[in-house]
Order: sequence, then structure tokens, then C-alpha cells
Amino acid sequence: MLALDFWFDFASTYSYPAAMRIGRLAATAAVTVRYRPFLLGPIFKAQGWDTSPFNVYPAKGRAMWRDLERVCEDEGLPFRRPEPFPQNSLLPARVAIYGLTQDPVRDWGEAFCTEVFRLQFCDGGRIDNPEALASILARLGVDAKAALGAAQSNANKLRLRDETAEAQRLGIFGAPSFVTASGELFWGNDRLEQALRWAER
Amino acid sequence: MLALDFWFDFASTYSYPAAMRIGRLAATAAVTVRYRPFLLGPIFKAQGWDTSPFNVYPAKGRAMWRDLERVCEDEGLPFRRPEPFPQNSLLPARVAIYGLTQDPVRDWGEAFCTEVFRLQFCDGGRIDNPEALASILARLGVDAKAALGAAQSNANKLRLRDETAEAQRLGIFGAPSFVTASGELFWGNDRLEQALRWAER
Repeated sequence: MLALDFWFDFASTYSYPAAMRIGRLAATAAVTVRYRPFLLGPIFKAQGWDTSPFNVYPAKGRAMWRDLERVCEDEGLPFRRPEPFPQNSLLPARVAIYGLTQDPVRDWGEAFCTEVFRLQFCDGGRIDNPEALASILARLGVDAKAALGAAQSNANKLRLRDETAEAQRLGIFGAPSFVTASGELFWGNDRLEQALRWAER
Repeated sequence: MLALDFWFDFASTYSYPAAMRIGRLAATAAVTVRYRPFLLGPIFKAQGWDTSPFNVYPAKGRAMWRDLERVCEDEGLPFRRPEPFPQNSLLPARVAIYGLTQDPVRDWGEAFCTEVFRLQFCDGGRIDNPEALASILARLGVDAKAALGAAQSNANKLRLRDETAEAQRLGIFGAPSFVTASGELFWGNDRLEQALRWAER
């Protein structure tokens, strides 16, 4: 089976259309996608940024918001601009990592990721709000209190830290990114189709 | 007739595939493209960069070179990595502006632009080399000495400065960029097809 790693940060704007498109496109391409949530914050910090580059560079930011609107329109995706931006993606990333590494794998992790993107970019919600995350988990039939507790365990926190370090090691500098088994790196929602063509066994 | 402005810097890596693709795609879409060479340098400087962001941020740079290789391969375009990078695009930009604003417009300006990109990304040449530019002009049937002289006139230097200021005013922060008559801005070779769909009268 062909495989591709999908690296994303819940606060990343273009990770939203990528997350909404990847299931359908990967199924068509017969590629198994591994969801790899991580944190861009430490990677941006290493580049000298304390916030999103879209805030650091206002002209780039203005163009991105308009571009994202057009991209979502072309894809038939609803779009609401998150407030504040960027949102704090630490808690949903921890919950997602916990869900994705549960046994059996992919029990609810991927569905949770999709719903977190929807919460932020469709419903105008805040992804750092534990109640909002609990409500997503409940809708997915997950014991929210137990999952949020496990997500905040030291072992799980460490897992997210390790994943972020692994992203950095792979040369990832933004999100979404797609990485093949041999380390071929693709950056951006625009590269999803190409990355799927490069997926490897 | 539908129209679209094509803003580019000769030193910009993704301006190369855009310049090689735009003629064919615009003809198919029945869009008249106006070539607008400008200088990214002053715009980067305003963002605090003394060189290309691909040099400032090495991980981003490494990924860009590999991505550009793949993009060119997909498009069937030859590709050689320019040395040094970025090259100094001041002289070819001045010559191009002069050619593009000659009467009759587009006598040789667009062909010159294409050949400068080819010199840099196919032949491994330096675009700041007056002899190399003179040889392109001669091949296009242009009096090279006269054109290089006119390109360095104060009036023509000012024209390039004005174009760069206009790019900044339009919110352009990178190249290639595409702008419609009403100011709809698209950034990147990846957006060429979409920009052509948005072209306006």
C-alpha cells in the first residue's frame, strides 16, 4: 500500500483545505495517509518569529486571507476567518496525538482532526476551548473527560514534543507538509496532489 | 479583451516557470498579459531582509530548490540552479522595461524577458553580464548598444523605480504576482491558471 505522511498544525490556515481534501484524494489515489499533527510555534521561533509569518509580514498576510477565501470557494468549502489568529493549537494537537496513537489506530483521531478544523474555519469557534473539544469528542462517541486527561499526561505531551522535533529534523518549516517514506518533502495545500503521486510503499 | 498584469523579478525562482508557461496559457484563455518587471530587493528590504528569504531561511530554501526541480520536471522545462543566488536583476529589468515601453509596444520586450530567464535557468549564465544581455538583444535583431544605453538613461531608471513603487502599492510582496484590472492579487506560479480565470476587461 502506498503511504504519505500529512504534517499539519491546527492553527495553520492552509492546513484547513488540505485536511478537508486529503481523505477523498488519498482514497482515489489508493494512498494511506498518516496524520502527523505538530506545532509550528517552536519552528517559527527558531526562525526568529514570535507569531505567524502572516502577522509578521502584513502584505503577505492580507494576500493570504484573500487567497484562502478564493481557494475555499473553488473547493466549495465554507470559510470563516479565525479570531484571534493564530489560535493556540497546543490542546487540540495533544488530543489528536492521543487519539491517533490509540489502539486501534484511527479509531477517532482523524475524525477529531477534521472536526477541529471545522470548528475553527467553519463555525468560528476557538480550538483552545476545552469545552468545545469535549463536545467534539462526545459527538464522536469518545469519553471526553478521559481523553482530555490522557492528552495532558506527561507521556502524551512528550509524544507531541517528539513529533515536532521530528518535523524539524525532516526539514519541515511550514504547514501543511507532506513527506514520503524516503523523505521527499512537499509544502503547502497546493502540493497535495503532487505529493500523492509521489507516495511510496 | 481580458487583461492581466504579470509582475516578476528576473532573480525570482518561481518567476521562471511562470514566464515559460504564461504565453501558452494566456493564449488559450484569450487573455492579454502585460509584462511588469520590477525589483523585489526594495520590497524585501522593507521587510527587513538583505537577501532572498530562501537564503534567510535555509530550510525553506532547501525545500524550494527541490520543489522547483520537481515543478520544472512536471512542466518539461530544463532547470539549472543559478549561481550565485539571487542574481542581480537590475540591468535586465532596466532593459526589459525599456523594451516593453518602446513604440510599438512588445516589439521585443517580452521575447527579451523569456530569453533572460532561459539564460539564467537553462544555460547557467549571469543576467547581470552586459555581454550576455547584448548577445540576447542581437539575436532578437535589436541594436544592443543603443538599447543598453537607453536602458541606463535617467528616465528609464526612474520608470523601473516607479514600477517597483507601484508593485508595493498594489500589495505585492513576492514574485511572480498577477493582478487584475480591479486589483485582485495572486501570488506565485501556482496561481497562474486561477489568475487567468479572474482576468478582467
